[in-house]
Amino acid sequence: MFQRNQDENSLVQRIERGFVGKRAGNRHTLKLGLGDDAALFTPRSGCETILTCDWFLEGTHFLKDKHPADAVGWKCLARAVSDIAAMGGQPRCFLLSLALPQSHTGRWLDEFLSGLRRAARGFRCLLAGGDTTRRKEILINVTVVGEVREGQAVLRSGAKPGDVIFVSGRLGEAELGLRLLRIGETIAGRKDPALKKHLYPEPRLELGRWLAEKGLAAAMMDLSDGFSSDLPRLCAASGVGARIEEAKLPIVSTSWDKRTQGFDSLHLALDGGDDYEMLFVVPRRRVASIQRSFRGLALTSIGEITRERTILLTDKDGQERKLVPSGWDPFREAKRKLPT
Amino acid sequence: MFQRNQDENSLVQRIERGFVGKRAGNRHTLKLGLGDDAALFTPRSGCETILTCDWFLEGTHFLKDKHPADAVGWKCLARAVSDIAAMGGQPRCFLLSLALPQSHTGRWLDEFLSGLRRAARGFRCLLAGGDTTRRKEILINVTVVGEVREGQAVLRSGAKPGDVIFVSGRLGEAELGLRLLRIGETIAGRKDPALKKHLYPEPRLELGRWLAEKGLAAAMMDLSDGFSSDLPRLCAASGVGARIEEAKLPIVSTSWDKRTQGFDSLHLALDGGDDYEMLFVVPRRRVASIQRSFRGLALTSIGEITRERTILLTDKDGQERKLVPSGWDPFREAKRKLPT
Repeated sequence: MFQRNQDENSLVQRIERGFVGKRAGNRHTLKLGLGDDAALFTPRSGCETILTCDWFLEGTHFLKDKHPADAVGWKCLARAVSDIAAMGGQPRCFLLSLALPQSHTGRWLDEFLSGLRRAARGFRCLLAGGDTTRRKEILINVTVVGEVREGQAVLRSGAKPGDVIFVSGRLGEAELGLRLLRIGETIAGRKDPALKKHLYPEPRLELGRWLAEKGLAAAMMDLSDGFSSDLPRLCAASGVGARIEEAKLPIVSTSWDKRTQGFDSLHLALDGGDDYEMLFVVPRRRVASIQRSFRGLALTSIGEITRERTILLTDKDGQERKLVPSGWDPFREAKRKLPT
Repeated sequence: MFQRNQDENSLVQRIERGFVGKRAGNRHTLKLGLGDDAALFTPRSGCETILTCDWFLEGTHFLKDKHPADAVGWKCLARAVSDIAAMGGQPRCFLLSLALPQSHTGRWLDEFLSGLRRAARGFRCLLAGGDTTRRKEILINVTVVGEVREGQAVLRSGAKPGDVIFVSGRLGEAELGLRLLRIGETIAGRKDPALKKHLYPEPRLELGRWLAEKGLAAAMMDLSDGFSSDLPRLCAASGVGARIEEAKLPIVSTSWDKRTQGFDSLHLALDGGDDYEMLFVVPRRRVASIQRSFRGLALTSIGEITRERTILLTDKDGQERKLVPSGWDPFREAKRKLPT
């Protein structure tokens, strides 16, 4: 855990600054964490604890020269919190493991912490502790602890044949943002919705919690590696297949901008990662409870769960083809692999 | 969290294998974790949750060519579990974040997992989930979740002037083991006690729990970065100082072996890291309850807590000198920095 001493003081103190104040109101649940061997956390009675962790590594998950430091701070927490959303839970606290070059312990660290702090406040997720070390490359690992009422957690394994498949938001937007970033869009372009979604994704906490509390979702996961890679995981966990109607997919629009004319929207939507939208299935008798949007976020029915364990994509002419997992996979030479 | 798909299957499956069986008897507390967005953990009523995480990085914390893979597996968990011991708690489950070169997904991974599995069984700490990715260097981050009865956790901040300072075991042994490893001792030498302690440290779980349950320790921490760096942290957290009697320190013996004649035992004991022994302070009226050993582990009283906030070392002639923090600190050019 964070260790204070003379030489490491400035780094750990900079990390603590701004976080500690926010903890004050939560002393009853988070007793300590900064400056002791470990953090102490009092679980709420009647709740289960949710645990998740995520790598966020320079060169693999972000580009030091392309991604602003505050976006790195925001996103490293947002993507782990998205896993909590996908269980229908709410985040409570997180541990930050940070390895930095000496050259990044100044301004870069301040901006990183500023983005992280904004995310922590937005998600109501408190910094509980962590570990720091020096390293040539920027390495980040975030563990998030969340909670969900006993029995309310939504797993990947609950989908049944006939259930209707939904996604939130628009697919491929974050991938489009990444491409814009790589062809030269910089910090000035952060107002671009696709770039914003890539840099500052919003975990769908409210949607996840609502679906879990109302018992509407039989299975749920977040879309992190790309629809074509993630849907098969949900289906495998449930022992089912799926039929997706291509025309229904809420795909990102690339026609509005000449910069993006070379991009294939369907490919972005199927194989693009980092959307952090919710993929969930709803039993047919509960479908009427799902509106077209939830607090401004589009919810789109895109197909149904099938008994046969294949995943089919039906085009507008009724032609079927198999969905091939082509999203993000670090142990395959992925097309979209970030340059190192 | 661990993602299953065709290409990543073999890696995640290899990690899961051997761990899942052990989970079966604990289904009521650890519901899932492998293969969903996050793990679900049911906290025991009347307990607080302890959270800690630790980096374990090639080149920084271990040497790929010197440290056997099974020792890397053992130690990455043992050192995080040691933080749980230092709170007086017991470990329940852990998350493993692992980044590996493709070349290390075969035999190296099997041996790593074998050491990790032995540690997980030994510490009764279940694999709950994690994250994997590919990387040129081996990067490990371990989060351990533990529990302690409400109000029983022993913090660093409880030391009072007059309290007696104790350490368990022998100081400097792990540092001696590291030096032996670096001058050429190999796997064959693993029976050497110093090398064994460096490669396969034993977190002092039983001692920590006993001290916490009996309410004997007013403050406690584990010695991970070296006595001269760690004692000041406990003192700072408690707002006190300390006087240590040099002659009482249970220092490692280096006279038994001609290989170690160039090493200074006192320096090893004061500044050597990775011992994972317990440093704890006991109010004077409770000192009679502390025997010279606990289940075969030596417990040695080495000095006392003082009101003045300095840390003094008294030699056998009664001469006092200040203790200078010279243990492990990644943000300082540490003498004992591992070669990268």
